[in-house]
Amino acid sequence: MSTNYLMATERVLHMKDGLRETSYAKNSLLQRKVAMKVKIILEENVKRMMSNINIESCCKIADLGCSSGPNALITMSNILNIMYNASLSLNKRVPRVFQIYLNDLFGNDFNSIIKLIPDFYQSIHQEKRGNFGTCFIHATPGSFYGRLFPDNYIHFFHSSYSLHWLSQAPKTSSNIAIPLNKGNVYITSTSSSSVYEAYFKQFEKDFKLFLKSRSEELRSGGIMVLTFIGRDKTRKINNPAEVIGMVLNGMVQEGLVEEEKLDFFDLPIYGPSAEEVGQVIEREGSFTLQTLKTIKIGWDANLEEEVDDGILDSKIRGEFIAKSIRAVLEPILSAEFSEDIMDELFSRYANLVAQLIEVETLEYTNVVVTLTKHS
Amino acid sequence: MSTNYLMATERVLHMKDGLRETSYAKNSLLQRKVAMKVKIILEENVKRMMSNINIESCCKIADLGCSSGPNALITMSNILNIMYNASLSLNKRVPRVFQIYLNDLFGNDFNSIIKLIPDFYQSIHQEKRGNFGTCFIHATPGSFYGRLFPDNYIHFFHSSYSLHWLSQAPKTSSNIAIPLNKGNVYITSTSSSSVYEAYFKQFEKDFKLFLKSRSEELRSGGIMVLTFIGRDKTRKINNPAEVIGMVLNGMVQEGLVEEEKLDFFDLPIYGPSAEEVGQVIEREGSFTLQTLKTIKIGWDANLEEEVDDGILDSKIRGEFIAKSIRAVLEPILSAEFSEDIMDELFSRYANLVAQLIEVETLEYTNVVVTLTKHS
Repeated sequence: MSTNYLMATERVLHMKDGLRETSYAKNSLLQRKVAMKVKIILEENVKRMMSNINIESCCKIADLGCSSGPNALITMSNILNIMYNASLSLNKRVPRVFQIYLNDLFGNDFNSIIKLIPDFYQSIHQEKRGNFGTCFIHATPGSFYGRLFPDNYIHFFHSSYSLHWLSQAPKTSSNIAIPLNKGNVYITSTSSSSVYEAYFKQFEKDFKLFLKSRSEELRSGGIMVLTFIGRDKTRKINNPAEVIGMVLNGMVQEGLVEEEKLDFFDLPIYGPSAEEVGQVIEREGSFTLQTLKTIKIGWDANLEEEVDDGILDSKIRGEFIAKSIRAVLEPILSAEFSEDIMDELFSRYANLVAQLIEVETLEYTNVVVTLTKHS
Repeated sequence: MSTNYLMATERVLHMKDGLRETSYAKNSLLQRKVAMKVKIILEENVKRMMSNINIESCCKIADLGCSSGPNALITMSNILNIMYNASLSLNKRVPRVFQIYLNDLFGNDFNSIIKLIPDFYQSIHQEKRGNFGTCFIHATPGSFYGRLFPDNYIHFFHSSYSLHWLSQAPKTSSNIAIPLNKGNVYITSTSSSSVYEAYFKQFEKDFKLFLKSRSEELRSGGIMVLTFIGRDKTRKINNPAEVIGMVLNGMVQEGLVEEEKLDFFDLPIYGPSAEEVGQVIEREGSFTLQTLKTIKIGWDANLEEEVDDGILDSKIRGEFIAKSIRAVLEPILSAEFSEDIMDELFSRYANLVAQLIEVETLEYTNVVVTLTKHS
């Protein structure tokens, strides 16, 4: 694909400019940065797939947890680009037709992605010049912790920054009257082993169901590339959610938040370690692990991109991180703790992050896996 | 499918109750009434299709111009029900997996349909009992005057109340400075033959492109059932759009609307006669016409359903029709003539319809066609 095609991709991104100060756009930039780091892994694996199978008629690609911004279409531009280049370097014919399925939950704002599709189609069309296939984009609503497609249907599954969301928060198996994770909303370095176990159990259950569902839907010879927030066991703070718990704890002490509410609430997210991911994939048994890598990226990585010298004081960093985390977690937190305390919560959050960032390196440990189905 | 399954369908419809007084709900009811009248044609043709082909793995169904209400899912419930019964009566296995593709333009509110899907899935699941297949619903945005799916992909195309929308309003081929349809926004009984010709030409061009695109996408042995607003050549008034032109003309006389605006604006709709439909299908050449029927339905048919004795004065009918037409035409009319005059326009519209209804039978002539691909 030529530069012109990539410029069209940039145009899709450009549509967010007017929203630069909203936290959604900031989040999209972080996810985009991660996607850029994963690109080389994508390239290797798409190339391997295309050397193994002949996609004669229609190549089916699915993006799981596409969310509602322009990221999903940028990712698809990249993937089509990679497929095109892989076809050329392998001296193979480029697939003539692509069906792209964008998946997210039923409550996702699909309308906002769909409005970007005409520009996307036009960029493909402009670049086609008879060499590149036609694209049909479909939205597929539903949970990826279950079936989304017929058997042996998809050639290439992609998912970025979605699989750390669990289908539900972990529960204690025994007595529901006793809180699993008193005084916190997520795992922290001081959590008891039962908290870890409950979270891991939920992740294992969900991820196994995800793998089983996808193995039924993936065509023989197809691949799956997954990127999600994981955990580095050697680190003290792994996830912005841990800091949310600290802030809420302080607010309980001051009587601003009900103690019981905090005690019984947990976020439905889990960052597995690379070892845990490998373990669950092996236990589930449908897939062969081709790649398992971790990629580190600062909580404020996308902020650094926007300033010339990359030097910023911790206050600005704290505020920036608070804003971007608020965009992701506010809906679920305000439903539980009321909207009234959100300003206070994230103002304290910004301050606490500003303090922590002076003594800790706050970064995501992203896990990237590439899987092929057992033949 | 059992009564229970149909009840679930009704539940989907029931979700509109809170909106009873909005014109969208009213429109949905009209379309639903048409769909009910088309059901027997659907049944015959689905049965014929299922006796001709074996849908072994996955049955693919597309609804073209699904709009944004619950109608699309009600239609799909009916079609699945018909397929189930046809399989039983033919002593065939019910298809194991269905993929349903809901199509409409990029600006359509897909989110509102997608939010209804979980209930729809649940109703299918409850009724499945091992006999009925799994359903996957996808949204496919794009114009049906062009390609939407890969070659030989869909088993059954359905479209109701969409194909009377043209891809654009007709244009005069010669001098664009001379209005095609002076003093009107649509064909009337007094329109010159050049107006008719321009509208028919646009319809023919669009409908041929529609047929060509669908013939490429339809699988051998598949069928297509289309219902749209047509025209009865013997009638004086065929379409509510004709009355819009009369009202705007009156407003021009009173200086409330610019004459030039009215002269150069035409609605992008066309109601073809049954003969014209047959003619274009034959000329295009990809399909065999299996059924060509006309079904008449009053402009206020859904109003009659809601009153016990069916007797209503013309003022109430006029207001009701104005409200339901406003829901469909306001966006396009207010973009052209400004939102400010909409209340006045539709108040006059209601009065004029109330007068006309005393002397004319105001009803839609719907054209229903069933097509199979030339083998």
